[in-house]
Amino acid sequence: MDQYQYNKEELTELVQNRKYTQLAEELTHINEVDAADFISSLDTNTQKMVVFGLLEKDVAADVFANMDRDSQQALISSLNDQQLSTIIEDLATDDAVDMIGELPANIVRKILRIAKPDTRSLINTYLRYPEDSVGSIMTAEFVDLKKTMTVKEAISRIRAVGEDKETIYTCYVTDEKHHLEGIVTIRDLLLAKDDAVVDSLMEKDVISVTTLDDQEKAALLFRKYDFLSMPVVDKENRLVGIVTVDDAVDVMSDEATEDFEKMAAMQPSEKPYLKTGVFELARNRIVWLLVLMISGMVSGSILSHYESAFVLIPILVSFVPMLTDTGGNAGSQASTMIIRGLALGELTPHDWFRIVWKEIRVAVICGTILATVNFARIMLTYRNVQVTVALTVSLTMVCTVCMAKVLGATLPIVAKKLHLDPALMASPMLTTIVDALTLIIYFTVAKELLGI
Amino acid sequence: MDQYQYNKEELTELVQNRKYTQLAEELTHINEVDAADFISSLDTNTQKMVVFGLLEKDVAADVFANMDRDSQQALISSLNDQQLSTIIEDLATDDAVDMIGELPANIVRKILRIAKPDTRSLINTYLRYPEDSVGSIMTAEFVDLKKTMTVKEAISRIRAVGEDKETIYTCYVTDEKHHLEGIVTIRDLLLAKDDAVVDSLMEKDVISVTTLDDQEKAALLFRKYDFLSMPVVDKENRLVGIVTVDDAVDVMSDEATEDFEKMAAMQPSEKPYLKTGVFELARNRIVWLLVLMISGMVSGSILSHYESAFVLIPILVSFVPMLTDTGGNAGSQASTMIIRGLALGELTPHDWFRIVWKEIRVAVICGTILATVNFARIMLTYRNVQVTVALTVSLTMVCTVCMAKVLGATLPIVAKKLHLDPALMASPMLTTIVDALTLIIYFTVAKELLGI
Repeated sequence: MDQYQYNKEELTELVQNRKYTQLAEELTHINEVDAADFISSLDTNTQKMVVFGLLEKDVAADVFANMDRDSQQALISSLNDQQLSTIIEDLATDDAVDMIGELPANIVRKILRIAKPDTRSLINTYLRYPEDSVGSIMTAEFVDLKKTMTVKEAISRIRAVGEDKETIYTCYVTDEKHHLEGIVTIRDLLLAKDDAVVDSLMEKDVISVTTLDDQEKAALLFRKYDFLSMPVVDKENRLVGIVTVDDAVDVMSDEATEDFEKMAAMQPSEKPYLKTGVFELARNRIVWLLVLMISGMVSGSILSHYESAFVLIPILVSFVPMLTDTGGNAGSQASTMIIRGLALGELTPHDWFRIVWKEIRVAVICGTILATVNFARIMLTYRNVQVTVALTVSLTMVCTVCMAKVLGATLPIVAKKLHLDPALMASPMLTTIVDALTLIIYFTVAKELLGI
Repeated sequence: MDQYQYNKEELTELVQNRKYTQLAEELTHINEVDAADFISSLDTNTQKMVVFGLLEKDVAADVFANMDRDSQQALISSLNDQQLSTIIEDLATDDAVDMIGELPANIVRKILRIAKPDTRSLINTYLRYPEDSVGSIMTAEFVDLKKTMTVKEAISRIRAVGEDKETIYTCYVTDEKHHLEGIVTIRDLLLAKDDAVVDSLMEKDVISVTTLDDQEKAALLFRKYDFLSMPVVDKENRLVGIVTVDDAVDVMSDEATEDFEKMAAMQPSEKPYLKTGVFELARNRIVWLLVLMISGMVSGSILSHYESAFVLIPILVSFVPMLTDTGGNAGSQASTMIIRGLALGELTPHDWFRIVWKEIRVAVICGTILATVNFARIMLTYRNVQVTVALTVSLTMVCTVCMAKVLGATLPIVAKKLHLDPALMASPMLTTIVDALTLIIYFTVAKELLGI
């Protein structure tokens, strides 16, 4: 075996020099995902057409499913009905539905017209599942068995129908009304005797999801139980499809990206960064920037309110950025851990009291250390500052860190309770709230200690 | 099929009432992961021992692998050598290595003493791979085939040796010196004729990783190519193990959690939140809080430096929190997208120029909108404020947003170039830098426009 390599530049050169025979040979050595990436990267639609035509028939649909939307659209427009029909019938339902959801209406009409009636009705059913539901990522291409079959019968059924199935590794045992009765892996079948009966081998306590469950729920179950696929049932426990681990992996990764974006005060975008236009990026960001800017004005008003204090003791103002920043940082630490814990299902709103109690103790430790360092530093660097000023700053620090940690732990849970996304309560939103409260604490303490 | 259910309270009651026969029956219906969770949750070690003893032999090792470290340790101490040996030999190497890495030395010695020589030497080899390397998550339990075998021979070999293998779905074809020659899936084998030769069915352009590759690299390949398992080779292309998708899923999830923690200025922790002690949490957080607090003092000094300005025009100070917060938010939006893009391999340092050019245009759009809203709001709410003050704030806003976005896009890439983790350049660190620069921009603009 040679080391696998995919050299885009080399392949592009072959296209430019029209060395198609050599290119066709090279294409047989590269993975479908890379072939799709290569075709998507070509400059003209003609080049895309030509190279796509060089692919072996049995990989064409897989390559097609992995291409970017623009290239898929270009190909659909140029292929004749016969060619297009072959590809559509070869696509897995979930890939077809995924693609159709994002193509322009005239292209979708062309596809549905060409698709065979069964495929068309399947696509139509799937298109009706809500975005982010399990239904939207499931596929109907599974192997179903009957519990009365012997291992030999089951294996020969798998060999007969397996070609077009998304996975043959887990097979689903259903009764005549399509109710799910159990699952059996091909491993169980192969390791059993030929005359054993499926009923005796199958796992009857099956963990399943329903079409309307959140796809994130399915992804968490995959992560927890290390499944390769999971059955999807309707309300009457009839098997309607399966979800496979590769889709769960994509969901996990996309949901994490979405959380990262929300936690940085952006509306999540579906496209990769470099493919997102400037206006779309600006639109995703401006709403939260505006909301936070306007809320940030509250801190400004509080500062104005205490104008007299910092005209009297100007040095007080110079500690404001440090206090508000530290408050924001301390709060974000707590909120990030809670948001992530909620997302992974490791924490639930029931844990609120344990969490807050933990955060208060952490805050006292951290706050005391920070306050001490601060006190020492103020006494050392500012020669003619009063001890009470240093005390004011240090005391504010302890109170701020405690307030920030408790808020950071509480707000995501409140959001969850209100059926909002906990990720909204991350750093930016939290910082804005903590800023205002920090200033109030600061000037209240200053009033008491400094008598201003 | 009944709906799968795992009711911890009900099972705990059975333990308390010593209804062991009923409990043993119930245990056969629940998933190994849940059984492990249940046993880990029991109060006393005696209860754990008793319930573990009720498990069916063929699931005991799986349940054991999924229990928490404390419960594993308790069981290892109480089991006799014979019982322990059975479990150790049944564990997959990667699970055994994972566990041993975290147990106290005396327990590890006990395990290694009891393990059979082959197992012991395997465990010792694996323990030597660096943390976070592919070697540390791989397993040696794969099915290897020869390319001269027929499908019939291959399938009967799989049926003979498959019992103890981590996966039988992808089989690895090696020569007599263990060099990897290709892979063949059980699907390819089952769908082919009995007398076909493995050589004609196997995929020869195999994507593989090496033992010393970063486990994150392997996880990204799984995500990109939708693999179920991947071969791990040494420098001479000899097959030494495989990584399976369930481990890749864990790596992806752990790496995302680690990034969330780093991006909120915490040292990453391996344990779930509720299992981490207060002092450990405080230790993970205090370092960055201190570093950022001390850096935050720079902003304070800058504010002091311009003391004269805000004594002259006190209203200027009240816009400081809004300007610094907005700068920080705008910068975090950019840095978050870049950090995530780098982590997923969608961006590389080569894209720097494209990224910065994109961010500058986004910044101009966002900055202008924010500045306009601000200008209008200042003119409307502050009756007796000069137009030049409103202009100062608005101009500063545009410059700050541009500066913040460019820095937010650049710093993670610089970190990557310096082989540091880009996640360190997230919100907290960035905000501290942006704060200081915002103040300098603000007072420079104020000097020019207001002549102070």
